Amino acid sequence: MSTEKSFAKGSAAPGPVPKDHIRLYSMRFCPFAQRTRLVLHTKGIKFETINIHLKEKPEWFFQKNPLGLVPVLETPAGEIICESSITSEYLDEAYPEKKLLPSSAYAKAQQRMMLEHFSKIIPFFYRIPSAKRNGEDVSGMEAELKEKLGKLNEELVQKKTKFFGGDSITMIDYMMWPHFERTEVYGVQNCLEHTPELKKWMGRMLEDPAVKATMFSKEAHEAFYKSFIDGKPDYDYGL
Amino acid sequence: MSTEKSFAKGSAAPGPVPKDHIRLYSMRFCPFAQRTRLVLHTKGIKFETINIHLKEKPEWFFQKNPLGLVPVLETPAGEIICESSITSEYLDEAYPEKKLLPSSAYAKAQQRMMLEHFSKIIPFFYRIPSAKRNGEDVSGMEAELKEKLGKLNEELVQKKTKFFGGDSITMIDYMMWPHFERTEVYGVQNCLEHTPELKKWMGRMLEDPAVKATMFSKEAHEAFYKSFIDGKPDYDYGL
Repeated sequence: MSTEKSFAKGSAAPGPVPKDHIRLYSMRFCPFAQRTRLVLHTKGIKFETINIHLKEKPEWFFQKNPLGLVPVLETPAGEIICESSITSEYLDEAYPEKKLLPSSAYAKAQQRMMLEHFSKIIPFFYRIPSAKRNGEDVSGMEAELKEKLGKLNEELVQKKTKFFGGDSITMIDYMMWPHFERTEVYGVQNCLEHTPELKKWMGRMLEDPAVKATMFSKEAHEAFYKSFIDGKPDYDYGL
Repeated sequence: MSTEKSFAKGSAAPGPVPKDHIRLYSMRFCPFAQRTRLVLHTKGIKFETINIHLKEKPEWFFQKNPLGLVPVLETPAGEIICESSITSEYLDEAYPEKKLLPSSAYAKAQQRMMLEHFSKIIPFFYRIPSAKRNGEDVSGMEAELKEKLGKLNEELVQKKTKFFGGDSITMIDYMMWPHFERTEVYGVQNCLEHTPELKKWMGRMLEDPAVKATMFSKEAHEAFYKSFIDGKPDYDYGL
């Protein structure tokens, strides 16, 4: 689309998906939608983006995903794919150039197990700042997050690889990245104090063209996050 | 293994996985492990089973899966695969005869979306009986479950197919079956009152050789479930 501005309640539904393109329904600051954006970028897939105002969702968006969540992919044939990890695997299979998932069944299972494991870390990135805002003691949660991040660090130490799936970026790195991009914004960077390999991994990720193409500055993340916390998310911040 | 009896705390660790076999760590009545058992059976994969006493877990089992959960697969090479849906996809890829997942990227994504959707139904099968035992009002939860099962029913109506992935059984049917096998035991069969197509699907599933090979009678399920509720799960019931 010619605009990156979010489509809100009352907006007209977009027309059909242009041929030879895939459409992504997204929200610019959503870490889950960023997973799909990373995959689209790194694989060089032609896509257009329609950003959704997640607080005042367009009525027509529920026809795309009854749950009203992003990311959602739509093909020119009208096929709909939801859920960040499912959209990512779909893209890797539908666009086989530059495969992000390994070909062996076991290596693929390992990536899925890592993702499953990481999905249990994600809630800490939300619960810790939320508890802090409520003036609660977060030391227990922080200790748990430190332990979990320590295990991720250990995994890199054991593997002696630059990334989680080997010496080049694979799917699992892109699935984990968006939440690491936001550790400062979540105020959990102190939990990364004793994870030198993980920090090196973050440094390497920052060099990746797809990461560069999809990321926001700390300032932009903070401005959006503040507006989100204040109950008035500025989905169009910076446009 | 020569025994189906569960391995408990203090038991000796089993030896290496026999060549040309895969090993499943399981629990006979576990619906998630049954997913893997269904895939192993229907694909005719040579496997051995080691049942785990989930209340008094063997110390060595945590070396297989630090979370201590079943199902777990172990290959002769010592590769470990955890999580029911990951073990199932692994088996389908590692043993390509009689594929259970469709080959097209979109059809595969559809199965994953259905599974994701179904994973949000599963908690009702546990919460409703638990709330009933506590004398709580379950009418709200039952209404929600009815609505969700109604949507599954509607999916079969719309698709006009015998199974969820077409006119023959595919992965998604096996992923959903184990919880349906237990609807009577969970005491939620009343939520299936207005789902005639879903009931027909259940009837068709009961004819499947892999379902027949892995299922337990209502009586066995009830006996195990009672022992489980009483805090003394009889993992070896009927042996």
